[in-house]
Amino acid sequence: MAAGGCRRLSSVSRGRELLAAVDTFLLDCDGVLWDGPRVIAGAAELLGGLRALGKRVYFVSNNCSRSRDAVVGKLGALGLQAGPEQVYSTARCSALYLGGVAPLHRKVYVLGSQALCGELRAAGLRVSGGPPGSGEDGEEEEEGLPVSRCTLDPEVGAVLVGYDERFNFVRLAKACSYLRDSRCMFVATNPDPWHPIGGGAVVPGLKPLTPSAVDGETEGQVTCTVRPGTGSLTAAIEVGSGRKAVVIGKPSRFMFDCINGTAGTGPLDPARTLMVGDRLDTDILFGANCGVRTVLTLSGVSTLQEAQDNMASTLPDRQKMVPDFYVDSVNDFLPLLNG
Amino acid sequence: MAAGGCRRLSSVSRGRELLAAVDTFLLDCDGVLWDGPRVIAGAAELLGGLRALGKRVYFVSNNCSRSRDAVVGKLGALGLQAGPEQVYSTARCSALYLGGVAPLHRKVYVLGSQALCGELRAAGLRVSGGPPGSGEDGEEEEEGLPVSRCTLDPEVGAVLVGYDERFNFVRLAKACSYLRDSRCMFVATNPDPWHPIGGGAVVPGLKPLTPSAVDGETEGQVTCTVRPGTGSLTAAIEVGSGRKAVVIGKPSRFMFDCINGTAGTGPLDPARTLMVGDRLDTDILFGANCGVRTVLTLSGVSTLQEAQDNMASTLPDRQKMVPDFYVDSVNDFLPLLNG
Repeated sequence: MAAGGCRRLSSVSRGRELLAAVDTFLLDCDGVLWDGPRVIAGAAELLGGLRALGKRVYFVSNNCSRSRDAVVGKLGALGLQAGPEQVYSTARCSALYLGGVAPLHRKVYVLGSQALCGELRAAGLRVSGGPPGSGEDGEEEEEGLPVSRCTLDPEVGAVLVGYDERFNFVRLAKACSYLRDSRCMFVATNPDPWHPIGGGAVVPGLKPLTPSAVDGETEGQVTCTVRPGTGSLTAAIEVGSGRKAVVIGKPSRFMFDCINGTAGTGPLDPARTLMVGDRLDTDILFGANCGVRTVLTLSGVSTLQEAQDNMASTLPDRQKMVPDFYVDSVNDFLPLLNG
Repeated sequence: MAAGGCRRLSSVSRGRELLAAVDTFLLDCDGVLWDGPRVIAGAAELLGGLRALGKRVYFVSNNCSRSRDAVVGKLGALGLQAGPEQVYSTARCSALYLGGVAPLHRKVYVLGSQALCGELRAAGLRVSGGPPGSGEDGEEEEEGLPVSRCTLDPEVGAVLVGYDERFNFVRLAKACSYLRDSRCMFVATNPDPWHPIGGGAVVPGLKPLTPSAVDGETEGQVTCTVRPGTGSLTAAIEVGSGRKAVVIGKPSRFMFDCINGTAGTGPLDPARTLMVGDRLDTDILFGANCGVRTVLTLSGVSTLQEAQDNMASTLPDRQKMVPDFYVDSVNDFLPLLNG
């Protein structure tokens, strides 16, 4: 099978050949197994079928706002059976990085959720910042103060940026101030630039998403169409501090190494591993960076046109964002399972 | 005189030769004429001397938080005489850009101060967003709401990013959502990445700025050492929207063109113009982009070492950040004025 061929996985014989060639599935979640609150048709049958075939399955998600147990809970609520040992989120992997790969004896200043703080604590780390009520290390709120009077925690030795709806000027200033010390580590959970809001996928690229806003048709209220991602918040801190973050999430291969180091089932063989995801710039590039085969599912953010444009490009960076195969959704795997 | 020589302007004969060769001075303000609340010694005498010699003086500042009148007021309070026609701030020049260079009949969504909104209104523009009480176009506060429920103003046709201490997740999400429409203009007042807080200049580059935070000496409270600049906020919006901002302030030559277009004293002759500033990456690069001679004053952000490092570099981008001359402060000009 040629790499990066961007072929439809429609032929049953081609699909069964692929399934026989891999024993480990790495599955993205958002846009692959679910879309917001809704399960994607075929997801439960796919997981059941893979389990029946004895395939190993890991959930590899750039999401940093859920604990492992919450991911298992969300999967379960959608009828998808999984255990916490299968879940590799950027919350967990960031904790593994700060707690093990690069041991830290100081506190972590966290821009992110309770769940992210929880994963850090579970890895034996101490937290500064984080949401109110996040524990004895919680940040004293200093909203409304001029930044020149905002205090820094003298024990902080790392800044961790995640998805943080409480992000504001004071928190940005604190992160930048900590990072003026070159010994302070700088880690970002994931590089996701933005996330679509609302029903269905928002196709990336510039096009009028708020036609009523532009054409002056003010019937109905127009609301935000995107929410900024961790990559957006990280960019502000990078510019404001003159530093570059170590990015844990896809497309970095760090999460692949995390699975290898902790899964307890032995290292993955890239030649026998398959990554399934909905974003070319994270999931498919992650697969390329790990040397594994890739399937793009069109049930999320990226489009077939974008994949084909990448394939037509002569730029090596874009060539790495061409999947081996594509499917409309995970439902297309089902006919292949009854080999 | 060789360009970009980074020579000390200490010899009186060399200095008088330079003064005779130029008839227009472009002066940065922060770090050149004042340092926070404190006037820099020699500033008043320099302005008086230049006036006596019949030189034209313009204040070219990346600051977007003061109206022209407020800049004149600040200059006056420090004993520096100037008129509003001499003041070119990024607040004024952004208004000139949106109001004239690229006429806009829709509202501007503003991340920035009252002063910035005021300059826009003075140029006939309508404002959305901006601080509370900024007028009938003021943004309804939606703090605490999930971004999915935050409303967009259907009349907005441009996003203008300035220095905004009210910057937060909701405002970031709104800016990114407006910019998903490719017809929405995207302008940033200036690219300044960060500003030092507190007495004296903070030397850029990575070094322990909070030694007590690192060494565990917790005596005395450690406060923020930097405040994020407009460039930091702009970076978040650029990543979150997939767009690139048009940047008004230095080092772009747009402000030079603004002076040429509006000063009413005829276009500047680059060969007879001198830029004096304290930042290599904004002021000195601005001078290079405008083809004028440059003086770095060491009373602000950039250091002589950085200028010399740029001179030693073979990278063209860094070669453009080498001043023709440097002085310890504007005080060094005084012996040259009595020609």
